[in-house]
Amino acid sequence: MKYGFGVDLGGTTVKLAYFDTNGSLLDKWEIPTVTANAGAQILPDIAASIHSYIHTHRIQKEAVLGIGIGVPGPVDSKGTVNRCVNLGWDSLNVEHALSALTGFPVRAGNDANLAALGECWKGGGQGCENMVLVTLGTGIGGGIIINGSVFFGAHGSAGEIGHMILNRNEQELHTSGVRGCAEQYCSATGIVRLANRYLENNDTPSVLRNIHPLTCKAVFDAGNRGDPAAQAILEAFYELLGEFLANVCNVLDPELVLLGGGVSKAGSTLLEGVRPYFRQKVFHAIKDVDFSIAALGNDAGVYGAFKLALQSFCK
Amino acid sequence: MKYGFGVDLGGTTVKLAYFDTNGSLLDKWEIPTVTANAGAQILPDIAASIHSYIHTHRIQKEAVLGIGIGVPGPVDSKGTVNRCVNLGWDSLNVEHALSALTGFPVRAGNDANLAALGECWKGGGQGCENMVLVTLGTGIGGGIIINGSVFFGAHGSAGEIGHMILNRNEQELHTSGVRGCAEQYCSATGIVRLANRYLENNDTPSVLRNIHPLTCKAVFDAGNRGDPAAQAILEAFYELLGEFLANVCNVLDPELVLLGGGVSKAGSTLLEGVRPYFRQKVFHAIKDVDFSIAALGNDAGVYGAFKLALQSFCK
Repeated sequence: MKYGFGVDLGGTTVKLAYFDTNGSLLDKWEIPTVTANAGAQILPDIAASIHSYIHTHRIQKEAVLGIGIGVPGPVDSKGTVNRCVNLGWDSLNVEHALSALTGFPVRAGNDANLAALGECWKGGGQGCENMVLVTLGTGIGGGIIINGSVFFGAHGSAGEIGHMILNRNEQELHTSGVRGCAEQYCSATGIVRLANRYLENNDTPSVLRNIHPLTCKAVFDAGNRGDPAAQAILEAFYELLGEFLANVCNVLDPELVLLGGGVSKAGSTLLEGVRPYFRQKVFHAIKDVDFSIAALGNDAGVYGAFKLALQSFCK
Repeated sequence: MKYGFGVDLGGTTVKLAYFDTNGSLLDKWEIPTVTANAGAQILPDIAASIHSYIHTHRIQKEAVLGIGIGVPGPVDSKGTVNRCVNLGWDSLNVEHALSALTGFPVRAGNDANLAALGECWKGGGQGCENMVLVTLGTGIGGGIIINGSVFFGAHGSAGEIGHMILNRNEQELHTSGVRGCAEQYCSATGIVRLANRYLENNDTPSVLRNIHPLTCKAVFDAGNRGDPAAQAILEAFYELLGEFLANVCNVLDPELVLLGGGVSKAGSTLLEGVRPYFRQKVFHAIKDVDFSIAALGNDAGVYGAFKLALQSFCK
């Protein structure tokens, strides 16, 4: 049996996990992401944490297959990151740099893509060869699996679906610099934005008017309890999400659409809300695609990162 | 050397071609598509045409590797068509049916997908492993190539990008039954529709007002000659097309976007018109994706159909 590490590098914390080659997660821990000094400390910190783990647990270096790492930005097929705003990084070859620091072979990929690989391997997409994971969190992430492998795209940017334009008549600028992208409506922050707009433009009484600051969860909770304003907000959201997912599926025609991220905690309420709008908008042959909720939560990234290493170094 | 047939089945004519395994198109011809009687005669007519060709040219049956056929509808991985409105077909296994009629092995795929494979093999996408062909004709077709092979999708409907919603505020219903899909704006008929709308809603003098019926080519010609109304119509079209292609590329991140179909005859005018809008809307890492014009014209389908047979029967 061999072993390896999966690393999920986020803007606030780095998640690390130790796996065996069967895919059993044997241990996991976190360290802070130090973004000061253009993120120069990030990879040395990760290397030090892995070395310390190996030392403490008396792991033979020969038993370590390698490291997989997910990064919040586009990563090309040679392991080069093209700008990670959250980390302060510009262009950097993560595979070479982390391999030099640790002495182990390293494979890197975009974090949303690797989360999809993790879900396909050990989560909500098990048994499925072609799927898309749509992560509805603070922002929107997307990851595409084709024939059981991550589809990275030519510039490491396949699945950047949050940037798709959903409403070309939007006046408000999104933080990404465009107007009307999917992230502006279908993320957790997008739902709060839809809610605030609705409450400003309508007189409907609502429990939401007393909640400060308003959250995505509060909107779902109020909707479930029959609050008419919350229900109207959620219908508007379902319509936008249904159209967004139809646009994605009209390109990819996957076996399965897996919804993850904070918004997906709404579970079957979410799936039942979005499906009628999806079916209205999508090409007829794709109408009955499976929808499901992601299963690995915050661990999807480390699972996928280690699976990428496994696919690369264990043929 | 072995040989084979590529068949491109359209709503009006069937294009047939005879190839060698190097991909040289040795001969080509057409027969009419007889859609009467729910299209029952279509496959027998194709089989008879192939038998007659083999007989006339004294081809040894042993020298025939097989037949590839492109069909204007979704085809699943087992060769089953799921409804072809243009042909009158409901559900039908094209591979089994045509193989039984000809005695040769048959592989079938969606026509737009196979056109992409043809362009990738012998046309504007040579040397490229990951590309998308966007056919802007009477309608819009899309075909996706991943690692040099057609990406069919789980229901044979990958690349059905003409159905993506581009303007959710559109009031007019498209023939497909949805409102605001890309085909409603970015096809040749879409451009004429944009032109008619513009001319109705503006007083700008224009040579286009004297052309009945108005055509896509007339709009491009007038634009090239400096007609201000035509130029305004084309700018509106470029913006819509740029956003549409950005949405597609934000999913797929291809090496190359190849534009085909009648609209692509505008050549570099089209490429230069659309690029600035594309760059405005697409994710930053994808901005510099290559754009080019398809090279095989009406032959793309037979090339791709034969290539599919070659990939399947000549390992």
